[in-house]
Amino acid sequence: MKDKLRVSRRSGCPISIALEIFGDAWSLLIVRDLMFKGLRTFSEFVCSDEKIATNILSDRLARLEAVGIVTKAVDPSDARRVHYRLTEKGIDLAPALVEIVLWAARHERTDAPPSMLRAMRLHREQFLADVRKRWAEAA
Amino acid sequence: MKDKLRVSRRSGCPISIALEIFGDAWSLLIVRDLMFKGLRTFSEFVCSDEKIATNILSDRLARLEAVGIVTKAVDPSDARRVHYRLTEKGIDLAPALVEIVLWAARHERTDAPPSMLRAMRLHREQFLADVRKRWAEAA
Repeated sequence: MKDKLRVSRRSGCPISIALEIFGDAWSLLIVRDLMFKGLRTFSEFVCSDEKIATNILSDRLARLEAVGIVTKAVDPSDARRVHYRLTEKGIDLAPALVEIVLWAARHERTDAPPSMLRAMRLHREQFLADVRKRWAEAA
Repeated sequence: MKDKLRVSRRSGCPISIALEIFGDAWSLLIVRDLMFKGLRTFSEFVCSDEKIATNILSDRLARLEAVGIVTKAVDPSDARRVHYRLTEKGIDLAPALVEIVLWAARHERTDAPPSMLRAMRLHREQFLADVRKRWAEAA
């Protein structure tokens, strides 16, 4: 992965590169749905509070798959259902999302449950370990 | 701030709210320029590697000011120069940007200096304290 030629990057800055990959609000909300809400299917993502349009959702899922942040698989118990799942590269976004949550909760009025914020703030490593454990168990 | 009515939010989710505020690649690159590169003026931002268009830069600076992430002030030594500066709310984005840098450096090929990545990874709290110290001293 690291040796693949990247001709179209705006710059070599890691922040710029990261934003080219997931720097789209809808993409990060899909990552959130997979990471924290346990959602896995197209119809579940559509029902999220932000009401993503289905054409945008299709586009962003395809992009997230193309950049290696999500994978999809057919449900073994129902071949008509496709499940999405974060890759290792995708679950590695957890620390960044936790910091974004803490920033928003500090500076804006949000619906974040106080117990979750407390866990993120006071037991950050444990919180992240739990997120990763749930992800690994859902494989 | 927290009590102000927010009628236009897509949802109360802290990640969604954060993305409505800075979830635009150009906005976060301006925050990066202010936070890590010590840039402060319009003409300095224009010269960043990603070559932001001047109309986009004007728009994003105005938006970042409107949401309380940057402030601007006239240079006391040259009244024709306007300087931008991160607010407390802006500098509080440092932990999120550090995690984004570490994620990109882990999964993509970037130009991030190895010494900086080492400092972020092994001495995260010290790195963040130094960022905040430089910000406070440049007031």
